[in-house]
Amino acid sequence: MESYFSKNITDALKNDPPGEWMPAMPDDCIRLSSGFPAPNLVPVEGIKNAVVDLLDDEQDLPLHYLGTPKMDQLKSMLQDRMAERGMPVSDKELLVTAGACQAIDFIARVFIDEQTIIAIESPTYMEALEVFQNYTSQFLNVPVDEYGMQTDVLEKMLEDRQQEGLSLPKLLYTIPTFQNPTGTTMTEARRKHVIELAETYDFLILEDDAYGELYFDEQAVPLKALDRAERVLYVGSLSKVVAPGLRIGWVATTRETIQALYWFKKDLDHPFTQAIMATFLEKNDLGKRLEMLRNTYQARRNVLLSALKEQMPDGVSWYVPEGGYFIWIKVSGVDTSLMLDQALDAGVSYVPGKYFFLENQESIEWLRLSFSYASEEDMIEGVRKLSKVVKESL
Amino acid sequence: MESYFSKNITDALKNDPPGEWMPAMPDDCIRLSSGFPAPNLVPVEGIKNAVVDLLDDEQDLPLHYLGTPKMDQLKSMLQDRMAERGMPVSDKELLVTAGACQAIDFIARVFIDEQTIIAIESPTYMEALEVFQNYTSQFLNVPVDEYGMQTDVLEKMLEDRQQEGLSLPKLLYTIPTFQNPTGTTMTEARRKHVIELAETYDFLILEDDAYGELYFDEQAVPLKALDRAERVLYVGSLSKVVAPGLRIGWVATTRETIQALYWFKKDLDHPFTQAIMATFLEKNDLGKRLEMLRNTYQARRNVLLSALKEQMPDGVSWYVPEGGYFIWIKVSGVDTSLMLDQALDAGVSYVPGKYFFLENQESIEWLRLSFSYASEEDMIEGVRKLSKVVKESL
Repeated sequence: MESYFSKNITDALKNDPPGEWMPAMPDDCIRLSSGFPAPNLVPVEGIKNAVVDLLDDEQDLPLHYLGTPKMDQLKSMLQDRMAERGMPVSDKELLVTAGACQAIDFIARVFIDEQTIIAIESPTYMEALEVFQNYTSQFLNVPVDEYGMQTDVLEKMLEDRQQEGLSLPKLLYTIPTFQNPTGTTMTEARRKHVIELAETYDFLILEDDAYGELYFDEQAVPLKALDRAERVLYVGSLSKVVAPGLRIGWVATTRETIQALYWFKKDLDHPFTQAIMATFLEKNDLGKRLEMLRNTYQARRNVLLSALKEQMPDGVSWYVPEGGYFIWIKVSGVDTSLMLDQALDAGVSYVPGKYFFLENQESIEWLRLSFSYASEEDMIEGVRKLSKVVKESL
Repeated sequence: MESYFSKNITDALKNDPPGEWMPAMPDDCIRLSSGFPAPNLVPVEGIKNAVVDLLDDEQDLPLHYLGTPKMDQLKSMLQDRMAERGMPVSDKELLVTAGACQAIDFIARVFIDEQTIIAIESPTYMEALEVFQNYTSQFLNVPVDEYGMQTDVLEKMLEDRQQEGLSLPKLLYTIPTFQNPTGTTMTEARRKHVIELAETYDFLILEDDAYGELYFDEQAVPLKALDRAERVLYVGSLSKVVAPGLRIGWVATTRETIQALYWFKKDLDHPFTQAIMATFLEKNDLGKRLEMLRNTYQARRNVLLSALKEQMPDGVSWYVPEGGYFIWIKVSGVDTSLMLDQALDAGVSYVPGKYFFLENQESIEWLRLSFSYASEEDMIEGVRKLSKVVKESL
């Protein structure tokens, strides 16, 4: 049957065949690799109560295709949240999706074809990249340092391409705030710069703000709030602040683009999970929940940072994240993907940096640790184990 | 921003711009248009209990991306069901999707590009057609009569195209059993014929079996059960037999194709709803539920048929469905889309036949009534109202 696959998919499968990227983890392993919230930070009881209340109140309504008024209510809650963060949008400028990945997929469908060049951060969130790779294989890799994406390097790339008569990217994919995997945040100067570049070189910006609400001290201004020329497609998510499994994300952009995205969305809607989320948010104060998460994750980050400082030998360095889930760590001269087996044997996991780069050259020395999942005790113990492995590898 | 849309989407939006196809219905209207189950046939309590049990047992597990062992359990339940119906498949040959529409969308992604011709039944399920139209605008319309798709007409079309040196379709989309909108079922002879044609003319068959389990007397043999040459992609759904809003469907086909479909699915998975469905099916006997639904819908169909026989004037005829949700009715010489306003004024709704055809010529006389939603009393009253409107229009 595979001889009938269309050309695009055959190419996509060839570029990056499906498969496991991480070896299996032993059960008792301390998971510093896991990019999801700790069990006790998922509001299990709140969601259970939301389902019971929803079905008691609305009976079969949320279980049909058409869904319930709760879906509009969720949308207007998200609009309120956007407005509070300096990004007021009308109900025609926001589309609720089944997670940020569905949002990114619909955007790819509308804007990307085989001819399209996409500029991406290097390293970046690989699930988004996998989605893009279903549509194009042309990427421009823009490096990230501790202040986020290096917009001066991007500018140079664009200048050079223009001078050489090469095509320019149509879209830039960025996670400007508490980036995955680096945990870095673009400075305000760079934010302004990238928006200028979008206007000068005529590209759109897909701003993935999955972690933006999880700041520790200071909130960064989203690109969308700085955008005066309608160049930003903002993608938000409740996965990191409520629960990933409900798959609630959204896109905010121009009315015309939302209309086009809706064209793909309409038969792939998820009324029940949207109604559950609306009910949950109605009965639970998201502001308070965010404050709790910020405090918790900040404390966890501090624990992880202290452990690193205490335990890691010279030759290991990291960026200090001001929010989000991750710490990005450099182990000078060591191939972290080769070191992983030893780490797993020692009972601690991480994600090798290689996984987050499309072009793997410079990536081998990095690794990603997460402070979202493991307990504080486990993080300390995990770093102790990891530092032993590192010392043997350096 | 819309000047940045890719060519494909611009074409798709042009072909069939998004919009409302049905006028708004008055609140007190008897909805013979609604293609979803009656409120009392949706297992609200069962689903509520499933959520409570699931979250009590598994806590945060089903609320993460990775989901729970319940997802494998759902898969193996679906495999058992397939085996009972003469379609044994391994776990590598089945992929659970977020409703049948997501399954159809992934299949379209893997097999369809702008060059692809798709053969479709005329009339057919428009939501599927809308999905296909996102990938190609080339369709071959195969007529349906009271015995389902006219495979002899399809054969003639294929012969003619081959003789004229025209491209042949790569995929046939069919709802062979209790078709939407006609309620018809392909005879066994036609089923065998279409599979022969697929082999002779080298095309694949997408079998949409959303209604197959809702037979009244006799179960039809799915095309997949007759398929010896791996030409059938089977799409199933629990929307019609449990609840549409949970969005649980699946594809069963070759291992290689499932692997390719999985490539698109993996970042668009819905662990929570799958785990809810698995828990529901664990605690509720689907066989018994199906028996209840078959009896209920058969009784409702009988009521609707009797009402039609009693009330409708000469010039109105219909196909008698042996399962499913719908009756397809011909009102000779009347444009049912023009008649709809009068019907809504009279307090009854239906879906004009026009909606289900890509080429609208022959469609204007037909309309679809549903016996899934309205109560028996309402159906009788609805037909009374509708017959008055019909008499005025004939």
